[in-house]
Formats: sequence, structure tokens, C-alpha cells
Amino acid sequence: MAKTKIVIVGGVAAGASAAAKARRCSEEAEILILEKGPFISYANCGLPYYLSGIIPKRDHLIVVDPPFFKQRFNVEVKTGHEVLAIDRVAKTVTVRDAVRDRSFAEPYDKLILTTGSSPVIPPLAGVELPFVFTAKTLSDTDRLFRFLLERSPRRAVVIGSGLIGIETAENLVARGIETTMIARRGQLLSFLDPEMAEQVARHCEAKGLHPLVNERVAAIRQDNGRGVVETESGKAIEADLVVLAVGVRPNVTLAKEAGLTIGITGGIKVDEGMRTSDPDILAAGDCVETVHLVTGAPALLPMAAAANKGGRAAGANALGRDLRLPGATGTVIVKVFDLTVATTGLSERQAAEAGYNPFVSYVVAPHHAGYYPGAQSMQMKIIASANSGRLLGAQIVGREGVDKRIDVLACALYNRMRAEDLIHLDLAYAPPFSSARDLVIVAGALAQNYRVGDWRPITPVALRERLAAQNQNFTLLDVRTPIEVKSGVIAGARHIPVDQLRERLGELDPTRETIVYCRVGLRAYLANRILAQHGFDKLLTLSGGTAAWPYELERP
Amino acid sequence: MAKTKIVIVGGVAAGASAAAKARRCSEEAEILILEKGPFISYANCGLPYYLSGIIPKRDHLIVVDPPFFKQRFNVEVKTGHEVLAIDRVAKTVTVRDAVRDRSFAEPYDKLILTTGSSPVIPPLAGVELPFVFTAKTLSDTDRLFRFLLERSPRRAVVIGSGLIGIETAENLVARGIETTMIARRGQLLSFLDPEMAEQVARHCEAKGLHPLVNERVAAIRQDNGRGVVETESGKAIEADLVVLAVGVRPNVTLAKEAGLTIGITGGIKVDEGMRTSDPDILAAGDCVETVHLVTGAPALLPMAAAANKGGRAAGANALGRDLRLPGATGTVIVKVFDLTVATTGLSERQAAEAGYNPFVSYVVAPHHAGYYPGAQSMQMKIIASANSGRLLGAQIVGREGVDKRIDVLACALYNRMRAEDLIHLDLAYAPPFSSARDLVIVAGALAQNYRVGDWRPITPVALRERLAAQNQNFTLLDVRTPIEVKSGVIAGARHIPVDQLRERLGELDPTRETIVYCRVGLRAYLANRILAQHGFDKLLTLSGGTAAWPYELERP
Repeated sequence: MAKTKIVIVGGVAAGASAAAKARRCSEEAEILILEKGPFISYANCGLPYYLSGIIPKRDHLIVVDPPFFKQRFNVEVKTGHEVLAIDRVAKTVTVRDAVRDRSFAEPYDKLILTTGSSPVIPPLAGVELPFVFTAKTLSDTDRLFRFLLERSPRRAVVIGSGLIGIETAENLVARGIETTMIARRGQLLSFLDPEMAEQVARHCEAKGLHPLVNERVAAIRQDNGRGVVETESGKAIEADLVVLAVGVRPNVTLAKEAGLTIGITGGIKVDEGMRTSDPDILAAGDCVETVHLVTGAPALLPMAAAANKGGRAAGANALGRDLRLPGATGTVIVKVFDLTVATTGLSERQAAEAGYNPFVSYVVAPHHAGYYPGAQSMQMKIIASANSGRLLGAQIVGREGVDKRIDVLACALYNRMRAEDLIHLDLAYAPPFSSARDLVIVAGALAQNYRVGDWRPITPVALRERLAAQNQNFTLLDVRTPIEVKSGVIAGARHIPVDQLRERLGELDPTRETIVYCRVGLRAYLANRILAQHGFDKLLTLSGGTAAWPYELERP
Repeated sequence: MAKTKIVIVGGVAAGASAAAKARRCSEEAEILILEKGPFISYANCGLPYYLSGIIPKRDHLIVVDPPFFKQRFNVEVKTGHEVLAIDRVAKTVTVRDAVRDRSFAEPYDKLILTTGSSPVIPPLAGVELPFVFTAKTLSDTDRLFRFLLERSPRRAVVIGSGLIGIETAENLVARGIETTMIARRGQLLSFLDPEMAEQVARHCEAKGLHPLVNERVAAIRQDNGRGVVETESGKAIEADLVVLAVGVRPNVTLAKEAGLTIGITGGIKVDEGMRTSDPDILAAGDCVETVHLVTGAPALLPMAAAANKGGRAAGANALGRDLRLPGATGTVIVKVFDLTVATTGLSERQAAEAGYNPFVSYVVAPHHAGYYPGAQSMQMKIIASANSGRLLGAQIVGREGVDKRIDVLACALYNRMRAEDLIHLDLAYAPPFSSARDLVIVAGALAQNYRVGDWRPITPVALRERLAAQNQNFTLLDVRTPIEVKSGVIAGARHIPVDQLRERLGELDPTRETIVYCRVGLRAYLANRILAQHGFDKLLTLSGGTAAWPYELERP
């Protein structure tokens, strides 16, 4: 067999992984990376932190350069080379060399498309103004960084509140720039359910990042030399700098024009082995559609770790191997100032949309033993199927230890665990690291209590709806101590401390629906059990208690 | 049905959990805790940190007290009440009330044994001396703490190097006490394989805790008013204070004398529902034998989290519920000064003993993106079955983020994952939390590379044995850069940097077995692949490279 020639279109995460893996599979193969931009294999996810100086040197962002790739892997890299078209019959790609201003046909035996994704540019007046930036590539960051140094902007507007938006905004605030973040929806970080996002928004506000939700940008304009972002609701926000971060879209034009199958999500359709509909073309990274392992449905999950794995599989499979990737569970983590915010699997909203009957619970607890110094509280939301008990997703907002719990839950999701079986995990416990009853274990116990009927939760969102309704045909019962109650109650609550409940049962009407709450849910659960055994059969517990209550409390 | 009377023997972790759960299951039941000691429900695992003041107040260690239990749970607690015997026919226990100096028979419908474990007191001369302590219970800690305050000991010897030994020793060192730790085996922390323990020992020494391995204590004596610990090898170590921490043993005398089945490990035999061989007696916590979920064999795993879960199940099942616990995977974590040391599943030694053909790999990598400030390296050892690929166990020594990876691996073990499928986990990545290729993902990739035959590892222990043999019929090849080589090499290595390997293949003999190493293993793997494709077919890679090499390096 003649030696295989592999051409890789795009050389950042997936492309570089594909090249390195292909070389490890074959010393014989000829491997060429064609990269449109000036750089390959850089630390995309680190870019926002370079803006503030948390990552102090630009060099730190460059993983490897073309000479390294040649020397280490015997892979030829051509930057500034854009692939314009694929001729699948001739098995060539048309390449545009921008520097030398020429085009040529490059033959391939196997083609790997790692064309990535691009920021969505909203169709707004003013997006072309010189103080408007995107923040996706190293080139974007270079431009933005130069602007920061040269113009010392005092006010910024970030349009969009996803990962790139929020990380960029945080690092602008760290530079002392007064920053406003505009979100189309009613919340930041749309992968979160609203009540979790609400806590993130409050933290942003406290840290000097001003979230403006439910706002659509109408236009960006320059007004007497000053930038202004106008919203459809009529707000005009001054901005020396605007960052567009409304999302990314897979780069599939090349694939589409070549007639490759595009999935319903808009990403290139590939099988488990990263093979496209053409047997000689593979694809990986942000440009492909993957499978959401919870729903089994196609999904766009443009994440760095998946790009590396996909590139590795594509590189091997281009040489006849058979590495397979089953998909992803949609895990996301982001630092938001002092908070860590993470999710895996489905949100409550997504679970409902996917046709599940979701059972939702909250756990609020410190990240390690409360008696060991430095314990910091976190809030975990667990979404499970009320029918099968299967874990469907989780969201966590906290400080320390959020990454640990989300990774354990991602592993549980991969293994299609039932939520109640989380209690069986033998998680590592010593006081500096966790609690004897870790949050994940407690989540398992709650799910078990739910299944056997010991407990029915109500979410804060649902309780607020019930409270807002005209006909409040239920008792809201606060079972905390008198001292806790002084710090604020949920409007309309009656107060009987759990330790007096057995003696004061006569004050409550067992025929009336009763919704119980405490600070995190443990005492409310006990109260619920006491009431259930005394003839109260319409009982709900506010999951997560006042600690997970995202709304205001009232003076008692 | 008359109300059920539940008597619980022992009120610390499992006992308190059992009582609380039983009450949540039934408001009707009569629940009595009989606790031999003066305290219930205290934070056993926090005790060592009280010795140094890291946990500043003794109150922080007390979870709840008897009046609280009465008020909150309507559970009667009798401390200072030792159960001396069980009459299974009459369904009574004989109770000794030490304070009132009387004994009485207490009837039960359901009995729950949560008698815990006790420190093993080695049969040594001198263990009764007044400066010799154990460190298991709050009472032990109170005695030891008083001694520390009153006598200000300057030198301590801790006999034993398990969890309690090492945590106690660390906190003595934190008080400025010159501390020696004596281990019978050739290493500290016997749950680790020796090469991992070696790194812990070095760290201890650097922090001022002196480990003395392969030493058996012959006697403890007092010599002109000074304590001395004598070893069988003839050493005499001065000690103002001696702590015995050679292990714990389940307290099963009561169960044994009552004729309950004791398992082969010496713990009380229980089913998944914590039921003993007597249908009216349940047991939970340190006193019971559990199932090791990797081997399926009975095991003693006396851990706090398991005690809480077991107590909960026993409390429910005493009232006719059917909660089941499948067992545990043997997860352990311990802070050792600045290190975090953790394991789950089987060690390499245990895997071999259990009849597996273990495949071992090491991953050395930073806990989060290397370019993000504060990255700290950790070393992960993965043990898998070479035959089935199943993950069998893991050990990690590092600083930050060790707890996260061990918990993910514990979840993977629970789900009986193959090691190579770890690559499929969708772990949370952002630069402050992990790497795009997290250690767990890399471990999966290594296992996959092993399965397809791209790579054969050799462990540091095995390589050292090979190097010590008379007949060194192999080439040891160092593929690091010249600068790295200057900092030390493994004795006998030839040096060809990986980036020159393709040109310098002629310098090596392809018929000779070749063992390749670099700093962590990645370049050695590439070198291995280059050599394999050029006719070298006896190839091994030193897993973990020099970073995981626990022995001295030589000047090149």
C-alpha cells in the first residue's frame, strides 16, 4: 500500500490532536495541517484570563507551534492556508494561500475536517464599529488586548451571557472596567435553570458586573465619539468597548458545499468513529454534532475536551483504526468571580422538554466537614426521572469543591445510574475534603426517600407560583428556630419550630395541604415525617429550604 | 401491632444515624440508645485536628448531645450504659449502669448493634505507662489533649502508620513536637503500593515527621523519668509521649457471645439490609463486615461514611423497611501535611493477591491547566485487569484536586467500568479546574493504547528489579531533552532526545529489548511508537517517567 496522505483542515484543538494521533499510528503517513488562521494548537479556553493578566504571558497560551509539530511529529503545518472547497471525486481540496496570494489543489487520501466554530455575529447596526469585538480566537484576543492597552476603555458592554461572555466580562471587571452584560433571556448562563442563574446574577452584581436580563440589543452606535448600546426597551448604555458573545456556530460551509451530511443541529453528522457520510472524510471538534448521552439525541456540545478526544479518534481512524466515542453528557463548568458554576446532563427545563417527568431536589451543604476550618457552602440541584428514578442532570453553584461533585455526577450519568444509587458511591471522606454525608450521598438519600414516598419536594419556583396564586389553600409552615425566623421568612408562613411540633400538632389542620420548610430541608423533612404519621397526607417540603430560595425573604 | 421497641447499642456514627432514621420511619416506635462511653454522635474524624488547634474548639466536635436527641427525635439516650449480654430468647439485653453501679435487663423488639471498633493494643511491655495513649475516641483525645497541655511533651513516637497514626502524628508535629512514626512494614499507609508510599514518606520527613519503617517495637519503658521506645532492631527512641495507632478491630464480643454469626474478617456478618443471623438483631458501622465491591469478597472497611449509611439502613429496616447497601469500594483519603493521599479499589498488590493479572499505569499531570496560575502536579496510579480491561483500583498522591479524581474513580469502580472507558467521561473542563485532557481521561487513553497493543508499560518497581539483575539484556533509553538529562538520569540509560530519534535510529539495536522513558511518559510513548514501526518489537515504556520514579536519579 502506498503511504496514506492525511490532510487536516484546521489546527487548533481537534486538528492538532488528530495529527499527533495519526503520527503515533503511522510513521509512514504523510500528514498535513492546513490552518486558515495564523496559529495552531493554542489554549482557547485560557484566552479570557489573558485579558486581565491572570495568565500573564501570551506565550503561556501557545501549546505548540508549527516547527515543533514538524520536529516532534513530522507533521507539516501550513498556517494562513484556507481550504475553500473539497473535490470528493478527485480527492483534493482547494487551498487559498493568503500570504502568497495563490490557490492550489492539495490531494488527500483521508481528509479530516476540524474547522471549529465561529462566533455568531448578530444582525445589528453597528457591529462593524471599531470598538466592537468578538472573543473566540487568539487573533480576537490579540485585537481586544491591544485595544485595552491603547484605549484604556472605562466602560464595556458584553452582549451575551454564555461561557465566553461571562469569562470575558469577569476579566474586564478585573481590569477595573465598568461592565454591563446583556442577556436576551430572563437569566444568565442558559444551561442553568432560572433559580440557579439568579444566584449567579446576584454574585455578578456584587462583584461589579451588571447583568441586564430580558433585554435585546437594538443597535450599537457611536455618539459624539462615545459608543452606545441601545436596547429594544429603550435603554442606552455607554460603552467604550463592546464584546459580542451571543454564541458560536459550527463551521460547516465547506462540508455542506461538498455534500456531506449535516445533522439536524447544524453540525457535521459523524458516526461514533468520527466518520462523515463520505468514507474518506472524518470530522471532529466544534464543527461536528455529537450524541447527548442522556437523551440519545443529536446535540452540539462544542467543548475543548470533546475536541481533543474526537480529534484523537479521527486521527487514528483515518489510518484504519476503530476508536469510538459514544457522545457526551453536556458537562460545563465556569468560574464566575468567586463562584464556581457547573452543570451536567439535562436542566429541569430540558428534562421537561425532552418528555421526562422530572423529580427535582436541592442539597445545600458545606464542601467539607463543617467543623473543619474553611468550609464553604454550595447548592446542588439534582434532576431525576420521577418514573424510573434515573439521574438526568445536575447543577451546582458554590465555591470550593463544585468541580468534584459535578465530575462524580457526570460519571454517574455516563453509567446511567439511578439518582438513589448515588447513596452507594464510596466517596472519599476525611474532614478536609468532604463530609461523612457528602452532598452526592445526600442527593441519593433524597431520591430514595422520594421513591419510597417518605417525602415530596416542591421547588422554590413552584412554591412561588403557588404563593402568587389567588387561592392559597395551603398552610406554609416554617419549622426553624425563633432566631432563624428573625432573619426573614417566606411571606405567609406560620412558625412552629420542629422541636415543638409534636406538642403543637393541634394548631395545624391535617386536612389542609401543608408545605414545610427550614433552612436547608433536613428539619422540614423530619417535620414532614412527623406530620405524615399524624394524619396529614397532603404534604410538601420546600427542597433546599431558605438556603436555596432565590427570592427575597420578608421581615417576620 | 404494639409499638416496636428499638434498642441501639452504641451511639456514635452508626447508632445515631440508626436512631434518627428509625424515628423518621415511625413516630410510634420506642427508641433507646445505650452508649457505654460519655458521649454520642461526635465527629470522630475531626479528633486529630483538635490536638493541634486546627479545630480550635472542642464544642465543634460534638454533633449532638442526648437532650437534643430527646427533643428533636424523641429518642432516649443513656450514656455510661454498657450492654454486657444479649438474651436472644427473652429478647433482652443486660445493661450495666456504671454511674449508679447497677445492672438491669432492658427488653427489645429489635436490637441494633453499633458497637464500633477499638484500637488494637499491641502486647508490648509498657503499654500501660501513663504517657502511652490511644487516639480513637473523644475520651482518648481528651486525655491526650490534657497531657499535651500539662506536660508540653517535646518528643513523641507514634506506633503505626495508618490513617489515625498519620493524622495524629501530623497534628503533633504542628504543635512543634518532634515526632517519629514507626511502621512494621517497609512503608507507611499500607493501603498504598510501596512506590506511592515512598513519596509520602519523603514528604513527611521534609515536614519534620520522621518515618521509621521495617521496625517492630519491642517495648516501651521509662528510663530515669524519660520515656523510651525500643525496637527489635535495637533502636531506642526517646519519647515524652507515645501514641498507639496500629489499627482498629471490630467490637464483636457481645455479638459473638450471643451466638450471632461472625464473618471471616472478624466483623459481624450482615446481609445487604444490615440484618445479622438473628432476624431481630441488626448491626452497622465499624463492627460489621461489608462486601468489597471490586472483589466481591467480605471486607472490613471501617469508615465513617459507611457507618452513617449502614446505621440509616439498619434504623429503617428495624421497622420493616428494606433499604439495601451493596458494599464499598475501599475508598480512603488522608491529608498528610501539604499532600493529599487517596485510594479506591485494589492496590497493585491486592489485585495480584486476588488473582487478577494487573495492568498498571501512572499519570503525572497538573491538577488544572498548566498555564493557569497555581497548577500543582499530582501522580495517579491506575490498576486494571490486563485480561478484561476492568478498572480495579487507583491511588493518587498530590496536592489540590486529588479528592476529585479519586471520587470519579470510585464512581467508575462502583459501575464496574473498564479502565479504557474512562476516556468517555464528560468531565468538567475550564482552566481553573482541570485540563482539557484531565488525568482521568489520560488514564483511559493509556488503557486503550494498552489494549490495542500500542504500548506496554513497565512500573518503576519492575524496572528497578530489571536494573538490579546481573544480566541487563536491554537498552534503557532516555528520550528527554539534554537540559532535563542534566538534572539526573536513571542509571545506565542511553540518551537520544525524542526529536532526534527518527534520524538516530541506527544507533539502536532493534533486536534488543528497549525500555524507554521521559519525564512523565508522553514522549516515551511517542518514541515507543516510532521504534515499534521501525522493527523494534521488544519495547516497554516506563510508566510515569522520571516524575513517578520513586528512587534516586544519578548524575548523567
